Amino acid sequence: MPRQRRDLTEGFLFTDQYQLTMAQLYWKRGLHERTAQFDYFFRRYPDYGRHQAGYAVFAGLEWLLDWIDATRIRDEDLDRLRSQRCASGRRRFDEGFLGWLAGTGGFGGVSIRAVPEGRIVHRHAPIAIVEGPLAIAQILETSFLNHLNYQTLVATKASRVAESAAGGPVLEFGMRRGPDTGTNAGTRAALIGGADASSNVGVSHAVGIDPQGTHAHSMVQLFMAMGEGEIGAFRAYAETYPDECVLLVDTINTLESGIPNALTVFRELRESGHEPVGIRLDSGDLAHLAVRAARMLDDGGFPEARIVLSSELDELAMWQIRAQIIEEAPRYGVDGDAVLHRLTYGVGTRLVTSHGFPSLGGVYKLVAIDGADEWVPAMKISDTPEKMPIPGDKRVWRVYDDRGLATADVVSGGDEDLSSGDDLDLYHPHREGIMRSVDNIENIEELVVPVYRRGQRLLPDASLDEMRERRLADLDRLDPGVRRLVNPHVYHVSLTGSVKRLQRDLIEQERSGG
Amino acid sequence: MPRQRRDLTEGFLFTDQYQLTMAQLYWKRGLHERTAQFDYFFRRYPDYGRHQAGYAVFAGLEWLLDWIDATRIRDEDLDRLRSQRCASGRRRFDEGFLGWLAGTGGFGGVSIRAVPEGRIVHRHAPIAIVEGPLAIAQILETSFLNHLNYQTLVATKASRVAESAAGGPVLEFGMRRGPDTGTNAGTRAALIGGADASSNVGVSHAVGIDPQGTHAHSMVQLFMAMGEGEIGAFRAYAETYPDECVLLVDTINTLESGIPNALTVFRELRESGHEPVGIRLDSGDLAHLAVRAARMLDDGGFPEARIVLSSELDELAMWQIRAQIIEEAPRYGVDGDAVLHRLTYGVGTRLVTSHGFPSLGGVYKLVAIDGADEWVPAMKISDTPEKMPIPGDKRVWRVYDDRGLATADVVSGGDEDLSSGDDLDLYHPHREGIMRSVDNIENIEELVVPVYRRGQRLLPDASLDEMRERRLADLDRLDPGVRRLVNPHVYHVSLTGSVKRLQRDLIEQERSGG
Repeated sequence: MPRQRRDLTEGFLFTDQYQLTMAQLYWKRGLHERTAQFDYFFRRYPDYGRHQAGYAVFAGLEWLLDWIDATRIRDEDLDRLRSQRCASGRRRFDEGFLGWLAGTGGFGGVSIRAVPEGRIVHRHAPIAIVEGPLAIAQILETSFLNHLNYQTLVATKASRVAESAAGGPVLEFGMRRGPDTGTNAGTRAALIGGADASSNVGVSHAVGIDPQGTHAHSMVQLFMAMGEGEIGAFRAYAETYPDECVLLVDTINTLESGIPNALTVFRELRESGHEPVGIRLDSGDLAHLAVRAARMLDDGGFPEARIVLSSELDELAMWQIRAQIIEEAPRYGVDGDAVLHRLTYGVGTRLVTSHGFPSLGGVYKLVAIDGADEWVPAMKISDTPEKMPIPGDKRVWRVYDDRGLATADVVSGGDEDLSSGDDLDLYHPHREGIMRSVDNIENIEELVVPVYRRGQRLLPDASLDEMRERRLADLDRLDPGVRRLVNPHVYHVSLTGSVKRLQRDLIEQERSGG
Repeated sequence: MPRQRRDLTEGFLFTDQYQLTMAQLYWKRGLHERTAQFDYFFRRYPDYGRHQAGYAVFAGLEWLLDWIDATRIRDEDLDRLRSQRCASGRRRFDEGFLGWLAGTGGFGGVSIRAVPEGRIVHRHAPIAIVEGPLAIAQILETSFLNHLNYQTLVATKASRVAESAAGGPVLEFGMRRGPDTGTNAGTRAALIGGADASSNVGVSHAVGIDPQGTHAHSMVQLFMAMGEGEIGAFRAYAETYPDECVLLVDTINTLESGIPNALTVFRELRESGHEPVGIRLDSGDLAHLAVRAARMLDDGGFPEARIVLSSELDELAMWQIRAQIIEEAPRYGVDGDAVLHRLTYGVGTRLVTSHGFPSLGGVYKLVAIDGADEWVPAMKISDTPEKMPIPGDKRVWRVYDDRGLATADVVSGGDEDLSSGDDLDLYHPHREGIMRSVDNIENIEELVVPVYRRGQRLLPDASLDEMRERRLADLDRLDPGVRRLVNPHVYHVSLTGSVKRLQRDLIEQERSGG
């Protein structure tokens, strides 16, 4: 997209119109600089239909902070807002309001506490808490949600794909069917969440990971059209990339043409002093073909050659393929485990679109406004208790039990310090009368920590590897039942007694017309 | 995202790694400047599960051309490619290849024929045809697919939503759960495909459409936290926007609090000389609440007040809501048709994520390479006949019958001119022995037309309104059975006899080891 249009559509005006109309209303009422708190959280883990997530992987924070830092209100943005007219023909935005907006400079005036990127997060508990001037924090909502919802969605999917790969390398290939430039955020999230590498050249370089890719069917077609056939294409590839030779074997017929031609070229490559890397299968019954290919590669003297699978893969498809391989392998005289160990997974469209659950319903809810000398909690009353945010200024903690496993995330009041690790009474976040006492606590960790304060980053930028390590460390401390791909156990997210009482009081107050 | 990273990730390196490895191979073999043709087409209409599309709306072309025009190979891009190393430690990309790449400047050397944006398109037939130096046209593939697949997917969904709205205004609200900055392309596509306006401020201004939005629950919560209650929020809104007053009535309780408070404020507004616009319902049983709201607004003296519905809407949900309204309305003494006529639809997440079918499988396939004095057709042989592209240099036509309806899209050879409108023998694109003769032809129109030639736009940029008019004109000439939301009729896409013969010859040639 040309830079001029990008500045208009990806800068300060990358927001929903109602954020601006509300901001002006706050300005007119003199409320615009009141300090407000908004919580970011989601209510439902991704549910892909036949399989479901029991946790999510938080991603998108650094790119969000980059956007906040880079975004300034430009004269052109103000001119566009000046050009808006009401039905009556009057200007929609008052010059005084626009002048105030211009004076803020942008979003630098907010402070953010958040879970560090790459960590496992759960529903209902705040993942990020924004504090800042009401009108500015309100305008920020759209971009905030946009940056975090999509990356968290894709990182979660990637973590599941990686679990299904059981240690086999996962390559992210989704660009061509990803959502315009948003696919770059998808690639980054996939790399945080579980992909080992990506085909996306620009983003791979931006995050410091070697991009991956070999060749497509079109290369084989080209050599066929020139009369040199599939083997001509394979020879050209092996000659150009003798140490990285992965051949795509399904352009004509995998078992009758592709693999035999690949074996011929692999032998020639070995004679010239190079070892081939492997083959790629991109169509047909991948499990069956992987077994047959393994046998043919073994018999041909290439038991180390890798088998890259691609074509509509996701965590469930991969799980099924692995099961089928274990079942089918003995019939072809192959060790099924050995086949599994030589697999690499190319996962594309279904990863970057989070197939089956294409959007995370993360929300950004007003929970408190500054009062005379303390936070005044705010609440949305709903007929659906699960839709009510947890009111007030809060802190978020993760409780580990004596097995070293995370047993609950706990939301406390802003003035409660749980770090002493004493026994806790925990209350259900939305239902009344459900509580439990936890007494086998080994350790309590504060989960939501300061990351940004009025233009300053409070944590050093983490590398992608650090984010991945956070994820792996959190997964290690998560109950295996919660990690299960299908029908996972429910992880406990609870409130302390004081937060529960506040929630109850506010509901009663509002329902009685307070 | 900071500009520096954006230049790296959204510029020349916005591609898959294998495009670059193939391009270098072509360079090493002296094939890089051979002129090649690639077809862009899709094989499956969106199938959302319980409902399916029988057509698609083409979108994304102008932003793709903008990207092509704006994208230059920068020194930093070359430096990144220089930094890549093979497993052996050698540089992956030869300096000679990088020098050649730099010399091309970018993608300006390609030519593109395409269907104009906003038009209805069908599976299998080429929607766009790229002609250019092999290596450059190959590198372009990823961005080409990325730009066209997502916008065509969303424009198609928007067209269905608009059909379901049956003339009622549709507002696109999807930013917050859209895919990072890609959501901007989604907004644009929605506006081309059927949305009347959007909440997306930046994109609305970029395309010249007034952005839409009123207020969120948070504004009501704020006034509640300040002790002024829901009615305080409504009064503040009416005072600030007296001529655009739409009130969100479900923060506490729609029927017992929201609508009564809205009516009070509407009466005050009228007394001060302004007419309210309406209310918005964002939760609960929207059909039931719309009927009840209509009755309350009628009884309160506001029969003209609009009812805006939002919350997880898509074409099927809207269809069901409309049916339920017709059924429920009489029970509350309301005219169901009158309720339908006052509805406005806010469609968000399910539109920009194309709920149920989150990616269009558009592909970009090599179909021909320049020969001594004519195009040499290229083909991918597959066990699935539907996966084979139509080989060779081609033209695409739309045939209208004597009812004025489009009856088939026809793919001819590049040297065939069907515009004379004679009787045609049409062949099934993938199955043998299926043909039909068409003799009631009124008109034949060439569908894929030159749009870009080596850096020059060949069509004037169309306004969004022109694109919408193209869509509406095409829909008018489409069989209503093909437009049906569920189980649509199959639209015919056919080949001329000469293309069918070429396809058959190539398959035989390749299968016999040619």
